[in-house]
Amino acid sequence: MHPNDPSLRSFVEVVPSSDFPIQNLPYGVFSTAATPSPRVGVAIGKFVLDLSEMERAGKLGEGLSDVFASPSVNPFMAFGPVAWTETRARISALLRHDNPELRDDTALRERALIPLEKAKLHLPLAVSGYTDFYSSREHATNVGVMFRGKDNALQPNWLHMPIGYNGRASTVVVSGTEVLRPHGQLKPPSADVPWFGPCKRLDFELEIGVVIGQSSRMGERLTECQAEAMIFGFVLLNDWSARDIQQWEYVPLGPFQAKAFATSISPWIVTREALEPFRLHGPAQEPEPLAYLRQTKANNYDLRLEVGLRAARMKDYVTISNTNFKYMYWSSVQQLVHHASSGCTMNVGDLLGSGTISGSEKHQRGSLLEIGWNGTEPVELAEHTRRTFLEDGDSVNILGFCQGDGYRIGFGSVEGTIVAS
Amino acid sequence: MHPNDPSLRSFVEVVPSSDFPIQNLPYGVFSTAATPSPRVGVAIGKFVLDLSEMERAGKLGEGLSDVFASPSVNPFMAFGPVAWTETRARISALLRHDNPELRDDTALRERALIPLEKAKLHLPLAVSGYTDFYSSREHATNVGVMFRGKDNALQPNWLHMPIGYNGRASTVVVSGTEVLRPHGQLKPPSADVPWFGPCKRLDFELEIGVVIGQSSRMGERLTECQAEAMIFGFVLLNDWSARDIQQWEYVPLGPFQAKAFATSISPWIVTREALEPFRLHGPAQEPEPLAYLRQTKANNYDLRLEVGLRAARMKDYVTISNTNFKYMYWSSVQQLVHHASSGCTMNVGDLLGSGTISGSEKHQRGSLLEIGWNGTEPVELAEHTRRTFLEDGDSVNILGFCQGDGYRIGFGSVEGTIVAS
Repeated sequence: MHPNDPSLRSFVEVVPSSDFPIQNLPYGVFSTAATPSPRVGVAIGKFVLDLSEMERAGKLGEGLSDVFASPSVNPFMAFGPVAWTETRARISALLRHDNPELRDDTALRERALIPLEKAKLHLPLAVSGYTDFYSSREHATNVGVMFRGKDNALQPNWLHMPIGYNGRASTVVVSGTEVLRPHGQLKPPSADVPWFGPCKRLDFELEIGVVIGQSSRMGERLTECQAEAMIFGFVLLNDWSARDIQQWEYVPLGPFQAKAFATSISPWIVTREALEPFRLHGPAQEPEPLAYLRQTKANNYDLRLEVGLRAARMKDYVTISNTNFKYMYWSSVQQLVHHASSGCTMNVGDLLGSGTISGSEKHQRGSLLEIGWNGTEPVELAEHTRRTFLEDGDSVNILGFCQGDGYRIGFGSVEGTIVAS
Repeated sequence: MHPNDPSLRSFVEVVPSSDFPIQNLPYGVFSTAATPSPRVGVAIGKFVLDLSEMERAGKLGEGLSDVFASPSVNPFMAFGPVAWTETRARISALLRHDNPELRDDTALRERALIPLEKAKLHLPLAVSGYTDFYSSREHATNVGVMFRGKDNALQPNWLHMPIGYNGRASTVVVSGTEVLRPHGQLKPPSADVPWFGPCKRLDFELEIGVVIGQSSRMGERLTECQAEAMIFGFVLLNDWSARDIQQWEYVPLGPFQAKAFATSISPWIVTREALEPFRLHGPAQEPEPLAYLRQTKANNYDLRLEVGLRAARMKDYVTISNTNFKYMYWSSVQQLVHHASSGCTMNVGDLLGSGTISGSEKHQRGSLLEIGWNGTEPVELAEHTRRTFLEDGDSVNILGFCQGDGYRIGFGSVEGTIVAS
């Protein structure tokens, strides 16, 4: 049976609302108090399956040569798409309810199946390069309307290519890492001169991160098909943004320190293969893209996304956005094709942010800048607790999942709390 | 004697015009036909001293643990400034004319001193992140005048901070690597729609690259003193640029594919220590920078720079620019302080491009865009050979050196030839 078959069941208990049924099997890096060296595992129900342990036990076949004992998925990704498919099929088979191989090997199960609450989750990949796109038409339009008015909302180039910029790989951190409020130069339009101090307009950006698992050669342009095959998987991504630092610094070379202080990602990389059943066509592209950007496949995904915001004194998250990855105008495949179009080398471990994901409805906006309409429409979290931008102690939590029939392919969450600096 | 002492002499012959006297000792990575694994060496006269060989022979003291057998200087850099100083002093002592230790050990000399013409030079560092600044006032002004007119030449933020953007680390290549003419979306202002094709306005940018040899922690801001101590050394850098791709893509997120296809650096990293005698104050900064950017030291360097251009059918380079690193408005130290100011983690192996280095005179311009004044003033290389931008087969060669009394601290060169794609 194909690892995506909805009828598959595992001997590990998985409730229907779990993010991690046997059809998912996302990769992550974890450590435990007992074995503190980080290693690769997959999530299943409320457990993580220690792949380094399974490899050592000879259960994952030949040739991967201790690849899961690494502190990142990069060495495994480097093996390429055939290995990805074979390994996923093998792990799926090992976890099936009717396969006694692991199920009935109490000693191995004891060693290899670790309760999630005992696992410390690390950054799953070594980020070679981080690039951030800007590919939601609704987001780009919202920002454009706010800053340039309705008639010039979209820049002239926006409908012709996936606009993006190089981000800072060194500050990509795993969910749960505290986010220090950045300092920077601030100069509101009303001020004569800038000053240096803590950012006052701190924001989140709801994005999906694409994890590149194969390299391209310098000078090599990619087809749709080649680009797709290089995509290993996807994570939730919060591209924390200092709107006031950005406003003063970004002309003419783009965002720099406004985005450099932190980018958070979820700890589990959901594979491209696991998302196959949820593919769909993105919005119609008009004007038709230039030939190198044309798509023959449905490269978008029906992936539901939700943002929760919680002030320090609040108990629960309040949902402030409900949107879907399917709204993206430019697909991840188009972004990757464009990224390599000049001859730019792509590497194992490159991370591409989708850009903020907004939909056409008000409740589908993917940043506080849009939700609070540039500070003019505060969002109410509780009595006497309103927000236009993030305050110290605020936590942001992004969730995402694809809903199948009786199961979901979940991403877990990416969470971060703002700390005064 | 201090390794910078001008009276020092080596038993290895060094002519006064050599880039690599005993006062320099720049680090590089090389391999040979006999021993093809890349390793770390220093240049001396017409030789490279194989540091992995010297280490193996026990000549470099304790504690570096095989660090020079690496294919990059990163592991050595990670040891930090004290190790940099001690190792340089030790290498200097070993190469002195009056020290018999290596001079009289024929067998070791045979193994460790390799003629430069037998050494293949590699990228000297593993580039963790590449950031490109824009810190020559003359360059920013020239570009501003061309595109926005004399009255709005400098953007409002330019005099308040070192403007920069994240570049693409994956395509930083060593001198001598061919540069494939990039493809990209082109839309001159006169065209209605863009098309995809080879760049027609290909340019070089004369820059210095700063090699960061120590890390900072996420959230840590740096003082002038801390930033300076993190700088390991400097290289020549050519930030190849596709002006037409850039023009269409760069609003609002900055240069992306226009700069992503190739950045060339010279193979030898000249240490910050070797440049000490050539420090001087940069241009007066008015308005005074904000406190976090203020300098108490002379952070500029008297480093002469020269650009040669040669068409395919020409024998010799024609010098088209003669300038100096000392003209830079924002120093490398200020760039690094600003880079970390939001809390951005800096890593061993980060490379910071200075930005194009132009002076106030016409012959001091550091790019063809400026030399040919946006295509309007072609530069004459030979009879019937004029250039406004680079053509296929053109080679660009950048040289740099600090002139001491009877010796020079040279950078060698960074060279690249444009190849049709």
